[in-house]
Amino acid sequence: MLIKNEFDLIEYYFKQSSFVRDDVIKGIGDDGAILSVPPAHHLIVTTDTLVAGNHFLSSADPAAIAHKALASNLSDLAAMGAKPLWCSLALTLPEINSSWLKAFCAAFHQLARKYQVQLIGGDTTKGPLSLTLTLHGAVPVGQAIRRDTAKVGDLIYVTGTLGESAAGLAEILKTQHCSELDALLSPSAQALMHAHYYATPRVELGQAVRSFVSSGLDISDGLVSDIQHILKASHVSAQIDAACLPLSALLRSQYPDLKKAAQLALTSGEEYELCLTVSPVNQTAFEDACAQTNTLITQIGKIEIGKGLTLTWQGEPCNWSLSGWDHFVSKEK
Amino acid sequence: MLIKNEFDLIEYYFKQSSFVRDDVIKGIGDDGAILSVPPAHHLIVTTDTLVAGNHFLSSADPAAIAHKALASNLSDLAAMGAKPLWCSLALTLPEINSSWLKAFCAAFHQLARKYQVQLIGGDTTKGPLSLTLTLHGAVPVGQAIRRDTAKVGDLIYVTGTLGESAAGLAEILKTQHCSELDALLSPSAQALMHAHYYATPRVELGQAVRSFVSSGLDISDGLVSDIQHILKASHVSAQIDAACLPLSALLRSQYPDLKKAAQLALTSGEEYELCLTVSPVNQTAFEDACAQTNTLITQIGKIEIGKGLTLTWQGEPCNWSLSGWDHFVSKEK
Repeated sequence: MLIKNEFDLIEYYFKQSSFVRDDVIKGIGDDGAILSVPPAHHLIVTTDTLVAGNHFLSSADPAAIAHKALASNLSDLAAMGAKPLWCSLALTLPEINSSWLKAFCAAFHQLARKYQVQLIGGDTTKGPLSLTLTLHGAVPVGQAIRRDTAKVGDLIYVTGTLGESAAGLAEILKTQHCSELDALLSPSAQALMHAHYYATPRVELGQAVRSFVSSGLDISDGLVSDIQHILKASHVSAQIDAACLPLSALLRSQYPDLKKAAQLALTSGEEYELCLTVSPVNQTAFEDACAQTNTLITQIGKIEIGKGLTLTWQGEPCNWSLSGWDHFVSKEK
Repeated sequence: MLIKNEFDLIEYYFKQSSFVRDDVIKGIGDDGAILSVPPAHHLIVTTDTLVAGNHFLSSADPAAIAHKALASNLSDLAAMGAKPLWCSLALTLPEINSSWLKAFCAAFHQLARKYQVQLIGGDTTKGPLSLTLTLHGAVPVGQAIRRDTAKVGDLIYVTGTLGESAAGLAEILKTQHCSELDALLSPSAQALMHAHYYATPRVELGQAVRSFVSSGLDISDGLVSDIQHILKASHVSAQIDAACLPLSALLRSQYPDLKKAAQLALTSGEEYELCLTVSPVNQTAFEDACAQTNTLITQIGKIEIGKGLTLTWQGEPCNWSLSGWDHFVSKEK
């Protein structure tokens, strides 16, 4: 098909390939989408923008860009405990490049289909490469996971392992100006790069545990930075033992110094793992729900009275200098 | 306040000044907004992106950019007959410029407040200037105004007057490289420029007439281009008499040749007027509803059997060459 204009583009690449949901009364093709929110549910809405040169390299694989954009928004829904429903995609492109679009859309639709998300609209414009996704989800009234509801005495958990995203980004930046050397990269470096681009959002887990957690969010800027949103919003402090952080064998193979690896895990962004707080009375139900969704979880600390974050290493105070964490603030409490 | 990072930016410029609605359980400040859609209503979602250098000049007044971005999305909700509820704003800025942001936000919040729209989230990123808005509205189940429901015999109406937006854009482009001459512009030229940037979306009207119209959309690309979405989606044709088009005194003063003015009105984009089709049985109820909202409306043509658009001038066929309209296609029927 010859793509002559915006309407052809939308029809060919986006509308025809989208997953189709019963609750979409009218999707792409009108001034707005007409949607039916399930009864007794709240709507959850989240938006993320990715800009070339800032969130990804212009030369990045379009499939990786599509995955990252959709996964980062799905991760926000996961962090709210919401079931994903619909997506709007605003895509700004310097030109209509069919092979780029084909690869982008294939990856986009594949991930959307996995989570039964229908593309319901958006905009295609000419300009510097960037994309903004708005995702819609639903959660039973009163069951959304929030940041402002952590309580003193709650246990702090993280899902999966941390650090691979930052380690992968470091590998990507190393190869930025020598892409022809990709084939020479070690399997470990390649695996880390893949981990950076293709993180799996914790969509099933968020829904499975939403009744048992007291608060939560997804790790997008780095654990030490993100958890402070919970602490500020809930007016509490936290103590985390960095020696408890879950580190993958892959990460440890590349960073044999455990403290260095832990520091990476504390600041690694775009992990799309969840950080959740759980009242001790719900601990068993929470851990059972995690086991039922085959999700690795690790208890890393506790919510306490006061404000700020205190880091320890095997019980001893740390005064590491970490981006996103000021160890002087933690002493104020 | 010193703006140090994205969080300060969001807090200071966006969160504190937003209109607040009761149906927003949680707005800005979590992984996603938590929202309550009114019972027995469908949700309407629409997204528009504006890119500097494409949809507006980088040097444009930030208040005008804010108004245009929000008005274009409000116009989409108006065209669906929806009541506006919530807005997400994804703003990409080359730098944090306080005076630009202050002017942008003042205009944004002013228009949002007028229509009782709460800003519920979004994203702020560094990059080439652009903004993507996603607006949410609600409409009673079954009452959304669609494009695919026009019927043969329906009357075609437009709201307000057409052509000023294109005439204003022409004035803006003339002054693009000589902004110091703004003060020397004629009052008419200034009024047209203002009309281009500050079009009023037909939000009240859309809700007032949604029960009485058979189909509709807003005029964003130009009447002859936009109406063809209705014709294709509804499998009908249309006959429009260009001599019936509503032209303002301001436009006619600048374009004394009536045919030239009408041609401008047919192709003028970003008008944010509505084009609506009405069954003759609903004509009186429709016209009464328009009168109650003090909205000028003009009947410009009729929906007919076949496909494509036929243009006439006082009943005689036109074969004008207009962007967005191919007069050969209209002869195919």
